[in-house]
This record gives sequence, C-alpha cells and structure tokens, in this order.
Amino acid sequence: MLRSHTCGELRLSDINKPVQLCGWVQGIRDKGGLIWIDLRDRYGITQLILDESRSAAEVVAKARTLGREFVISASGIVIERSSKNPNIGTGEIEIDIQDIQVLNSSKVPPFLIQDETDGGDDLRMKYRYLDLRRASVRSKLELRHKVAQQTRRYMDEAGFIEVETPVLIKSTPEGARDFVVPSRMNAGEFYALPQSPQTFKQLLMVSGFDKYFQIVKCFRDEDLRADRQPEFTQIDCEMSFVEQADIISVFTGLTKTLFKNIIGVELPETFRTMEYADAMRLYGSDKPDLRFGMEFHELNDLVRGKNFPVFDDAEMIIGINATGAAGYTRKQLDELTEWVKRPQIGAKGLAYIRYNADGTLKSSIDKFYSEADLKAIAEAFNAQPNDLILILSGEENKVRKQMNELRLEMGERLGLRSKDKFEVLWVVNFPLLEYGEEEQRWFAMHHPFTSPKPEDMALIDTNPGAVRANAYDLVINGVEIGGGSIRIFDRTLQSRMFDLLGFTPEEAKAQFGFLMEAFEYGAPPHGGIAFGFDRLCAMLGGSDSIRDYIAFPKNNSGRDMMIDSPSAINPKQLDELHIGLKVK
Amino acid sequence: MLRSHTCGELRLSDINKPVQLCGWVQGIRDKGGLIWIDLRDRYGITQLILDESRSAAEVVAKARTLGREFVISASGIVIERSSKNPNIGTGEIEIDIQDIQVLNSSKVPPFLIQDETDGGDDLRMKYRYLDLRRASVRSKLELRHKVAQQTRRYMDEAGFIEVETPVLIKSTPEGARDFVVPSRMNAGEFYALPQSPQTFKQLLMVSGFDKYFQIVKCFRDEDLRADRQPEFTQIDCEMSFVEQADIISVFTGLTKTLFKNIIGVELPETFRTMEYADAMRLYGSDKPDLRFGMEFHELNDLVRGKNFPVFDDAEMIIGINATGAAGYTRKQLDELTEWVKRPQIGAKGLAYIRYNADGTLKSSIDKFYSEADLKAIAEAFNAQPNDLILILSGEENKVRKQMNELRLEMGERLGLRSKDKFEVLWVVNFPLLEYGEEEQRWFAMHHPFTSPKPEDMALIDTNPGAVRANAYDLVINGVEIGGGSIRIFDRTLQSRMFDLLGFTPEEAKAQFGFLMEAFEYGAPPHGGIAFGFDRLCAMLGGSDSIRDYIAFPKNNSGRDMMIDSPSAINPKQLDELHIGLKVK
Repeated sequence: MLRSHTCGELRLSDINKPVQLCGWVQGIRDKGGLIWIDLRDRYGITQLILDESRSAAEVVAKARTLGREFVISASGIVIERSSKNPNIGTGEIEIDIQDIQVLNSSKVPPFLIQDETDGGDDLRMKYRYLDLRRASVRSKLELRHKVAQQTRRYMDEAGFIEVETPVLIKSTPEGARDFVVPSRMNAGEFYALPQSPQTFKQLLMVSGFDKYFQIVKCFRDEDLRADRQPEFTQIDCEMSFVEQADIISVFTGLTKTLFKNIIGVELPETFRTMEYADAMRLYGSDKPDLRFGMEFHELNDLVRGKNFPVFDDAEMIIGINATGAAGYTRKQLDELTEWVKRPQIGAKGLAYIRYNADGTLKSSIDKFYSEADLKAIAEAFNAQPNDLILILSGEENKVRKQMNELRLEMGERLGLRSKDKFEVLWVVNFPLLEYGEEEQRWFAMHHPFTSPKPEDMALIDTNPGAVRANAYDLVINGVEIGGGSIRIFDRTLQSRMFDLLGFTPEEAKAQFGFLMEAFEYGAPPHGGIAFGFDRLCAMLGGSDSIRDYIAFPKNNSGRDMMIDSPSAINPKQLDELHIGLKVK
Repeated sequence: MLRSHTCGELRLSDINKPVQLCGWVQGIRDKGGLIWIDLRDRYGITQLILDESRSAAEVVAKARTLGREFVISASGIVIERSSKNPNIGTGEIEIDIQDIQVLNSSKVPPFLIQDETDGGDDLRMKYRYLDLRRASVRSKLELRHKVAQQTRRYMDEAGFIEVETPVLIKSTPEGARDFVVPSRMNAGEFYALPQSPQTFKQLLMVSGFDKYFQIVKCFRDEDLRADRQPEFTQIDCEMSFVEQADIISVFTGLTKTLFKNIIGVELPETFRTMEYADAMRLYGSDKPDLRFGMEFHELNDLVRGKNFPVFDDAEMIIGINATGAAGYTRKQLDELTEWVKRPQIGAKGLAYIRYNADGTLKSSIDKFYSEADLKAIAEAFNAQPNDLILILSGEENKVRKQMNELRLEMGERLGLRSKDKFEVLWVVNFPLLEYGEEEQRWFAMHHPFTSPKPEDMALIDTNPGAVRANAYDLVINGVEIGGGSIRIFDRTLQSRMFDLLGFTPEEAKAQFGFLMEAFEYGAPPHGGIAFGFDRLCAMLGGSDSIRDYIAFPKNNSGRDMMIDSPSAINPKQLDELHIGLKVK
C-alpha cells in the first residue's frame, strides 16, 4: 500500500507515530508561516500541518502548488492538535508533515465536492465520478451495499439458495416493453433482457430447489417517469409447498432485520394486514400511507336529498377529517380547492365543513345544509372542535383516486408524514384481473402466473373481475416496496388464464410452452415475491428518489450522460447482426 | 407450509410424531400387502410405508395410482424401520402413512432423475428443469451459492463495498465483440452489454471508493468454444493506493478462504510467484500446471553439431523428462509420436531417450548420438534409470507450445494431475503488448488500461514488445482463474497507450473520453483484478466444465434449448426500435 493509515483512523493514541497518508486535498489554509491541508479519503479527513520554520523549504513550496482535489501522498509524524475539532474522529490530532508527493493533479472541479454542492443535476450526472466523491452521495451507496449484504445473510440463514438466472432470455409481449439483443449467430432472431426472472424461478421450483432467491438486475423499456430507471434491481424469491402466510412471514422477517440492522428501527413483530378491498374503500389506494388516519367516509346517505345538485347527481360522495385543521383560512381553502381542480387531480370542486373551536360549524355548503345536517355529518367522522372535513364527489373510481391525493396532501401539510416514522402494511387479496377499457380485454393485475383464490374459482367464467388472487404487496409509508403471489402450477388452469388474457393457444405455446410443459412433470405448489431493491434502499435511507441509490443512473431519456450512451455503432457491426437502421 | 418437516430431517428421536411431508415420488415398491414409497425433496429422501392390513383401502388404492415424479403430500406417524439404511440420514425411520394427497401428477420424465442418468446432453438441456432435479446437478449450484456467499463475506469484512455497475453501457471496438441493444428512445443508437465493468470500476476509484468489488454478469459475443458462455460471471475488484503485492495479498486470502471453507483444503500461506518469462521458458505456457515437474530443458548446445540435420536446423530443441516412463513400449512411443504430429499439436516428429533400468540408454536418434552423447543429455535432466526423455524441435515459439501440450499429456498419462491436489501460482510481469502479425499492429496483452512497469517505460518508444506490465494472473492446476493489473491513472500515458494501439485521437476521445477526462480531476493510483466465477466454482467442484455450474446455460450456438431463445420478435417491435432485418 502507498499509505500506512487511512484518513479516518488516527487518534491521540497514535501520537508520535510516523505515518504515510494518501488522499485528496479538500482544502488548504495558508497563514503565512503555517499551512494546513485537509486530506480526505473514503474514511475521513485528517489535518496536515507544515510550519515554515521547521519544514523543508521545498516541501513548503510544493504544498503551495497544491489545489483542490489534487491527489497526494504525505508522510510525517502524528502530533496533538492545539485547537481540537470535536466534530470529526481525527479531530484531536494532526500530521506534522515531512514530505509531500503529488500523485496526480486536478483541474478545478465543475462543482463543489461537499455535501451542499453548487452543481445542478445535469452537471453532476455528467461528472458522476465527482458527484460520487461527496460523502453524502457515497454514504447512500454504502447503505445499499449493507442492505444487499444483510439481505443475502438473512436469506442464506433461512435456507434459500441464490441462483443466477440468465440475462439473455426470450421476448414476451405481456407486460412492459422488452429490451432486445440481436443475435449474430442466429440471423433474424433476438434475445430479450428479463423484466424479471419470473419463469426461471418457477422452473427452479419445478426442479425442486425449494427455496430460491436472487438480488438481480431487471430491465424495462418504458417511457421513463421521474423516478423510473430502465435497469433496476430486485430482491427476488420463490418457495415451494407454501401458502401466502409463509411468504409473508419470511419477508416480514427480512424487513424487520433490515430496518433493525441498517437504521436501528424496531418494527412490530407482525405487520398489519389489510384486504385490497378495504384499502380501496378506506384510502382509495392499494398502497395507503398509514402514518396517519384520515380514513374515507362515504357520505351518500347523509348528504343526498337536500337539493344540492352536485351531491344528488354524484355516484359517490366521500369525506375525510383533517383533524385540527379548522384554522385553515378562506384563502388556504380556496388554494386547496384550486389544488384539487388541477388536471393532475381533476376534481370539479371541494366542499368543506369547519368545526370551529366554539363548537359551531361553518361550511361551503351552508346554503343546502342546516347546522343540524352538518352536525350529523361531523358526527359520522367523530369530528371534534378544530377539525376540518373535506368532501369530494363524482364518479366512484375517480373520486376515490382524487380523495387519495387530497388525503396524502393534507397529511403532508399537517406534518403527519414524518420520515422517521414507519408504518408497514401487507395488502392482500388483490383482484386477479382488471379490465382494459381501451383494449376491451382482461389484463392480469399482477402477472399471468398468479393463482386465483380456490374459493373464487367458480366465478372465473361468470364474473372474472370478482375473482380474487392469492396476491400480496408490502407497503411502507404509502410506498409499494414489493409484491408477489401464490402461482398457478397446473397446466390446465395456466392455459385457461392465457386464454382469458387473449392469448391464442399458439401464442401461449410459442411464448410459454416450456413452462406449461414443465407443469406436466410434477410441478409443486409454489409462490414468491419480489422487492424493489432500489426503492427499499431509498426508503431505508429516508429518500424519495431511487436515483440517488444507483451508482450510475440514466436520465429520463434513458441516457447515461457520463459515458454518453446509447451511441451509434459501426455499420460492420450492424451487418454482422443482420440488421439495418430505419431512422427517419 | 404444506409440510411439517422436510424429507431430510426426521430421525429416531422423532418416533411417534405425527408429520406431513411433501415431495416427489422417487420410486415405489409394491410387495402385495406392503407398499413403500421413496419421497424426495431438496433435503433428502424419506421412506413412506402403507400396510394393506392397517391402512385405509382408498389410501392404498391412491398410492397404487402414483407414478415416478408425482408430487404428493403425505401424512402419518414416524416409526422405526425394521430394515435400516445406513447410507441416508433418514435411514432409521419411515412414515406409517395415514393419508396421501396428489398435489400434481407427472408424465414419465424423458430421462432418469438420478445421478447416473440415461439422458443425453441435448435432452437434458431441453428439460434442464428436470436435469436440475438430480442431486448431483443441484449440489453444483449449491456449491456456487456458497462460493458467492463466502466471497461477499470475505470482501465485506476486508472493507470492500459492492457497487452495481450498469448493464446498459456503451459499445467499444477494443476486445471481443459486444452484444448490443437498440434504443427505442434514441433512434439509431445502441447500448452495449459490458464485457467487464472495467471503466466503471476505475471511475469508482476516481470517486474515492477506495475498495470496490462486485460479483457481476459479463457478456461476450464470441464464437463459442466448448467451454465458453455468452454470459458469464466475474468476481470483480478494484483498489486505490495499491501496488501489485496488495492485490495479490487480498486475493490470495480470498482463494485460501474459499478452498478452506468450501472444500476443506488448506492452501499455503503465500502462493508461489513466477515471472511470465520463466513460465514460458520452463513450461511453454503462461498458466503452467505445477502439480508435476517435467520442466523444459533447452538442448541446443548439447545436441547440435552431431550431423543430425533435424536438430542442426532447428531454432530450438527442448526436452522434458517423463520420470519413470522408460517402460513405454515401442508401440506406445509410436502412438505418442502420432499424437504430437496431429494438426492440433503440429510437431514434425518426436525424439526420445530411454534410460533403461540396467543403466543403458536407448534412443530414437542412436544413429547420430553415441552412448556418451546420450549420457550427457540425460545428465542435463538429472535423469535416473527408468526415465524417459522426450524431445521436440523447431521454431522456438511453436516448439514451446507443442512441448507444453506434450508435457500436460504425459502428466495426464502418468497420473500426475490428480483432481484432489491443488497447486496455486501467481504469474507476474506479463508483457504489456503483443504484436498482431496479421493486423500489423500492437495489441494490449491484458487491456488498454494496464500500466507499464516504470522501469521499462524508457523502452516504450524503442522496443514496445519488451515493456513489461504490472499485470498478474492466478493459475490453479494449469487453469487461469483470473487476472488483473495496476492501471494507468495519468491522462498523457493513457493517450500514448491508445495511440500505440492504433486509435486515432478522435476514436480514443469518442470511446474513452469520459475516462481520460476523469483522469484530469485527481485520479488516484489504482489497480484491480477479476476472477472467473464460473471457472472458480468448477475448480472447487472438481470439474472441467463451467457449464455444469450455470443454472441455465446456452449451447455452442448461444441458444437456450429450454426456452428456445433467441427467437423472432414482431415487426412492430422492430419498427419501434428503428431497425429492420437484413437476413439473406
């Protein structure tokens, strides 16, 4: 090694030791006779000192040529600092420098290499290798490493085998768009990159692997929203001879272990479980944020028949009680009304009932409702003085979505969504299918391999939309961390499912024939789950952005700004791959 | 769980327990009144017993419908076996069955699901999910899992951070052929799949990550030889402020840990180190198998000038001593001569000197060499009675390669290459460059980022072929497990290297501009290594084939026989990707 110690480890107990440190120049202070250099590496910062009256003239001269981010090797003796810095581990010592060697110089970086940087997003992505030098960024990737290590340890100790499934697989039209890879050796044919190892992990169950897991890269060629990446990582798992409760138990344990070991948070022994139907009814969302209440109340019976046409004509009227928000001014309420009327939310208006501190009630619908009417509504919420009831109405599905947004917004405004609080929830019994109005056909809500609940099987021909699946999602603070299902393991049922989803028998065979054939050779009952690993890391790190937890992310056009990829390739390569460009 | 226990865990201490097992029917013996079923899962085999005189008639009837590989759930009571099987853990008990449930039936598998199977290679690959059911195959993937776990634990404890580098990167023409991925969002542009995370790990060093590792999938679109796969896995590593000895030390430790913890083999504290030049001189190979000696002896001085034109005209004459092989008959020696003359080896002939047990010498070149001449040659080898000296001659580079093959063959024939013996070696100081006669230019022997030895830098303009690199390979039993180098971290030197390798400045900038720019912002001295993970697992498992250690391998045409991939994709997808087919 070119160093004897790192920049984070020297202490008072090392006084008088000769040491050699390597690192980056974080800053230099030149006070005439004395020069201090802050030397930084991954492990910390150590202060170097040169004293013109004692140090060799050429070493002092060399120190004066150093700039920010120069890489140097410095040798000297550990001494006690006169003015100690209690904020850093090495704050009680400094190095009395005997020699300095410049290992590499540095141009002035395009932005400040410190937690509070002046670099904009694009600049930091172009120079991601400099952005990653900032301790606040590096610590996110250190956290990611720890989460991966802990996950593997937990799964290994629980008897799971990590199996690497292939990256070059087969394109299938169900689900999102695949990235494809032209084959040179098989003209006109393509591999696809996996959106998940779904079929392979199911085949491993057919193989008797019993308990499989993998931390694995997956790929989706989707139009990227703010927080989506074309390549992302999953904790993927599958088990044989299990029921829903077994998967939930293993991943409850994993989640508890990670929260405890990574951020010291003790989650409850078992997590809350909520039916999908209840989540939709009470929160208008299959991933409710339970850090606060504000459950939905359906008000149809209470508010109809009072000659208020908006409510009388609405399919559904829903209210929430923003506890303690009665202080909202008229101006604030107007602003909130505009907020729900924005196209992103799409409500037609917002009604409110303010429960004043003096016990009186004031509402935006006083014209239609008497004080007694309002009191009756308030009682439905169990509202108290100082509460504010907010009401939306309209077509049922829409009003649930709108109210979900409003509820989250009010939770935010009232400070009920603290990053330090974690409310974990299993949402279970999702519908098996959802109808695509545009495509006029059924789609698998989870994926085509999810099994219907046996007790709902009778409905599959008569009322497919009412069939519930053995499917479950883990939700933390309103964020979906992952989900899974108990799978179909019977060829006939799997064929029926492909049929329902609009596959011809030929299409089903061409794309999933190998899986259906495998089901004929003794496939065991099995089920599994996948957690979004990037998302889980962001949750543990207290961030909303998965991009911060990815070393080299791509931008919203799927472009790596640093290496400037994708890029053109040479025509000879295209020829070898039997393809040509069709660019307009 | 659908079971109370696995098929591998019940013992005499469990007698009288009611249990429920799930698994596959390995076999059934129906001896009239008694039926035995061997039930198998990942954990073992447990014997079930039904007694017609005690068991319910419908359960017995159900048992008689079972076939091989049916998946069943069976409940009953643990009882002591009358005839115990000491070969399996569960051999002292059996289950007195009360009920059986068929979870899934099975067609008759296309080959036997047991260690010695009757399935050919193609059939087993098409039904890989059944092949993986065999314990001998599954155990290889269990070993792979253990190697990965142990590797991560070792690296983590040594302070390395695992960072996931991207899979969708940029195509570069140096090295092997890239797999590419057309970009839908960036018309006419392509991503490439990484042949290694080389540039990214170097950028992580520029970022100050200090110690990086990753177990990572890599991709090469090469014509596949017997034991190559288009996707393969590496243990990848990079460190800052290091010299060659530091990398060697970390990976010596890792190798020792894996051999000890996985297969209980204690490797020496430090491994042998050999100069590349010595390896070529003594073994004609940069990955010598040191399980046996048989070093090369150059015989030019001893055998020339005796009017034997073959030797007089040869650039190089090399011999090896096959200790104890003097018993080889004339027929065996003729066969060996034919062996070296095959086109794969390409020697013109083979001379031998047999040191008889009685001390006399007999050779194929008696016509030209006296007994004294032969004695002098034998003495150069320190040969003893019963030894056999084998001699090849010709153009130096060729004769070294040929003799390497002959040495390995003789080692094999003499039983000197036992799979239970491990001889580990670091080969160091490889040449920086090798000349491509066909292309008339220099190629990087390792890759363009490898640094020359400082003391050889003066030769880089005058005699590039003589410049040695800070490069090293780990070789076990003649197999290259991995290699690495200390990298260039200076922009000027990196430019010079691209120049030597025939890049125009524009090409170098377009492909590696981001790396060279990164070197201008304080790049530290750094170096690294990569181990072939599939190869390492095969070595630890005592196998020559990496394919056995890959769950879902591809065949020599890069085809996954099970899922039938690659395959055609639909024209709409091609349109979206801005490409068309050019298939003749």
